[in-house]
Amino acid sequence: MNDQDYMKLALQLAESTRGQTSPNPMVGSVVVKDGAIVGVGAHLKAGEGHAEVQALKMAGEKARGGTIYVTLEPCSHYGKTPPCADLIIEQGLKRVVVATGDPNPAVAGRGLDKLRQAGLEVVFGICQEEADALNEVFFHYMKNATPFVTLKSATTLDGKTATTTGKSKWITSPAAREDTHRYRHTHDAILVGIGTVLADNPSLTTRLPNGGKNPIRVVLDRTLRTPLDTKLVTDQEAPTWILTTEQASKEKQEALEQFGVEVVRLPDDSIQTVLQVLGSKGVTSLFVEGGAEVNGSFLKARAINQIIMYMAPKLFGGNGALTAIGGEGFLEVDEALQLDIIEVTTIGADIKVVAKVKEGE
Amino acid sequence: MNDQDYMKLALQLAESTRGQTSPNPMVGSVVVKDGAIVGVGAHLKAGEGHAEVQALKMAGEKARGGTIYVTLEPCSHYGKTPPCADLIIEQGLKRVVVATGDPNPAVAGRGLDKLRQAGLEVVFGICQEEADALNEVFFHYMKNATPFVTLKSATTLDGKTATTTGKSKWITSPAAREDTHRYRHTHDAILVGIGTVLADNPSLTTRLPNGGKNPIRVVLDRTLRTPLDTKLVTDQEAPTWILTTEQASKEKQEALEQFGVEVVRLPDDSIQTVLQVLGSKGVTSLFVEGGAEVNGSFLKARAINQIIMYMAPKLFGGNGALTAIGGEGFLEVDEALQLDIIEVTTIGADIKVVAKVKEGE
Repeated sequence: MNDQDYMKLALQLAESTRGQTSPNPMVGSVVVKDGAIVGVGAHLKAGEGHAEVQALKMAGEKARGGTIYVTLEPCSHYGKTPPCADLIIEQGLKRVVVATGDPNPAVAGRGLDKLRQAGLEVVFGICQEEADALNEVFFHYMKNATPFVTLKSATTLDGKTATTTGKSKWITSPAAREDTHRYRHTHDAILVGIGTVLADNPSLTTRLPNGGKNPIRVVLDRTLRTPLDTKLVTDQEAPTWILTTEQASKEKQEALEQFGVEVVRLPDDSIQTVLQVLGSKGVTSLFVEGGAEVNGSFLKARAINQIIMYMAPKLFGGNGALTAIGGEGFLEVDEALQLDIIEVTTIGADIKVVAKVKEGE
Repeated sequence: MNDQDYMKLALQLAESTRGQTSPNPMVGSVVVKDGAIVGVGAHLKAGEGHAEVQALKMAGEKARGGTIYVTLEPCSHYGKTPPCADLIIEQGLKRVVVATGDPNPAVAGRGLDKLRQAGLEVVFGICQEEADALNEVFFHYMKNATPFVTLKSATTLDGKTATTTGKSKWITSPAAREDTHRYRHTHDAILVGIGTVLADNPSLTTRLPNGGKNPIRVVLDRTLRTPLDTKLVTDQEAPTWILTTEQASKEKQEALEQFGVEVVRLPDDSIQTVLQVLGSKGVTSLFVEGGAEVNGSFLKARAINQIIMYMAPKLFGGNGALTAIGGEGFLEVDEALQLDIIEVTTIGADIKVVAKVKEGE
C-alpha cells in the first residue's frame, strides 16, 4: 500500500461519518508503522475527539517513528480539544501526510508549519480533490457563512410534479423516496414554503429503515399562515423554525411559540437574507424540498449549489401541470443556471440525476 | 464460435442497414461450413436481394452441407424475389438456424416447415429477443398497419423547452443535436405541427457529417396556414405532406401543390386517423419533433411507442415556460403513460434518456 491507498482509507473513514459531524468537517486518519496499520480514527461528532487523536490513541506507543495520514490539515490551535499538531509531535511520528488544507485562510498552513519546524516530514495534497469534494459543504460554509444548498425535485420524465388537477401521489418509486430520506439525514436543515405545508401537512422527518437524524425544519411563511394543528407545529419530532416578515401577527407568533416553534422575523423576504440568517444560526447544509414557487425563488436568486432530481418513467403532459421550478424563471437562454452533471443512475424504476452548479455561477 | 456467436454476427449485419431497408425489415445472414464462415449477407434495400440470397451467393458451392444463420425466418412465397427457403434447399444446406419468426401470422412457420420437409435440421429462437428488438418497428407496422412512433424532446434539466419569453436557441449541445439527426436518418417520416413551422421555419432534413437520408416531412395543419415561402414548401429537399381537414381552403391547397407539396384532407383531426393515413401510405416509423401541443395530442391519444429525451444541464425555471408535452395532459396519476427506461447516458454535456412505452399501454 502506498500513500494514496492509505489516504483513500482515511477518506473512507471520514465519509462514514457523513451526517453526524456538523458543524465540523468529516475527517479520517490512519497511522502506519513499518508497513502495517497501527491506528485508525475518524471524527465522529462535534465535541468529541479529532480523527488524529482517535487514531493515535489506538496506535499508542506503536505510533513512534511512524506515518500519520489525515484527510484535513491537523489543527494548531486550542479549541474544544488541544492542538492535534502538538499531539503528533509528542507521539514521536516521523512523517505526516495530509490531503487538503484548512479552509480558513487565517490558519491554513499553520499546523503544517508547526510540524515541519519540529522536524517532521510533511507531504501535502495526496487525494486533495477527493478531500475537497468530501467536505464541500463545510468548505462552502466556512467561506460564505451560508449553508450549502441542495435542491431536490421529483418529477415525471416530462418534468411535471403533479397532473393538471394537482394530483401527485405518488410520482416516484419507494426506492427514490427512501433515497430522499438519506439526504434528509445528512442535512442540517430542510426547507419548504408555506404552500407545501398547507397542501401536504408534511412531517419532513427522516424515515429510514434504521432510523436517522431529523433535520431542522424550516418554513418560509411571510404572514404566519402555518396552522397550529399542522405536524410541523405539533409533532415535536424535530425543531421547527418559521421564517417570517414584519407583516406577521404577534398573536400568531406567540401561539406558535407555545408549541416550541421558533419564529424568526426577517428584515426582508429575499433568499439571500434567508441563507444569511440560517448560516448565522449554524446551519451548514440546507435541503430544499420546496414547491415550484420556493424552488423558483432559490433559482432566481442563484442560491442553489446542487440539484438532486428523481424522474419517474411516466408522462403526465399538460400545459397546466406544475413543474419543479416555477416562479418568474429566467427570460434569456444565457441567463440559465449552468450545471455539471455529477451522477446519472437509475434508482428503483426511476432516474436519479445529481448535478452541481458550475463554478463561477 | 457457437450458434449464438454466428447469430450475433448476423444481427450486426442486419443492424448495419438501419434506416435503408424500409418498408422491409433489417435481416442479416451468415453461412458456415466446417467451422469457417463462407458467406455473409444483409438485405440492403427494398427491391434488392434478401440477406440469405446475398450470403449464399458469396458462399457458392461451399454452402453445400453447411449451416445458414438468418435473423428472420426465410420467406416461402414468391414476392419480388423467389422464396429463400427454396434457394436454401437447392444449395444443399444441412442446417438452418433462425432467430425469430415472420410477423405475419398467416405465413409464420411456413418457411421453416418447407425446410424441415426437405430434410434440413431447423433450429429456431437463437437470440430471438435481440432479433425482435432489432425489427420492432417492422413488427409494429405489420401488426398495426400504423407507424411506430418515437417522440423526441430537448429540455433543460427542469423540463423546460424555452424560457418564459419563448427563447430556446440553443438548449442542448451540438452532440445531442447531431444525435437527433441520426434518428431522422433512420425514420421514414418526421412530424411537426403548424405552430413549429410558423415559429421556426425548420427544414427537418438530416444533416449529418456524412450525409444521411431525409425523412418525409409531415405537417399537421388543420386550416392550411403553412406559408408558401417556408422551407418545407420551397426547398425540395424531401417530400412534404401536409395533413389537413375539410376546413382548409381549396385555393391554398392548389398553391401548395404547385410546389410539389402533397396535401391530404383527413376526415377528422384525431391522432389515430393521422397514424392510419400515414400507415396506409407506407410510413412504418414516425419521428415526432412537435411542440408542446402536438406532443400533448400524441400523449393524450396514447399514440407514443418510444421517447427520446435530451436534457441539458441548465435550469430555466418559470411557471410560464413551455414544457415538452403540453395539451390537456392526464388528470390522474394512474392515467400517466407508463414507460420502461431503456438507456440513460450522457451525450456531450447533456443527458439522453431512451424509454419505451410499457407493453399493454
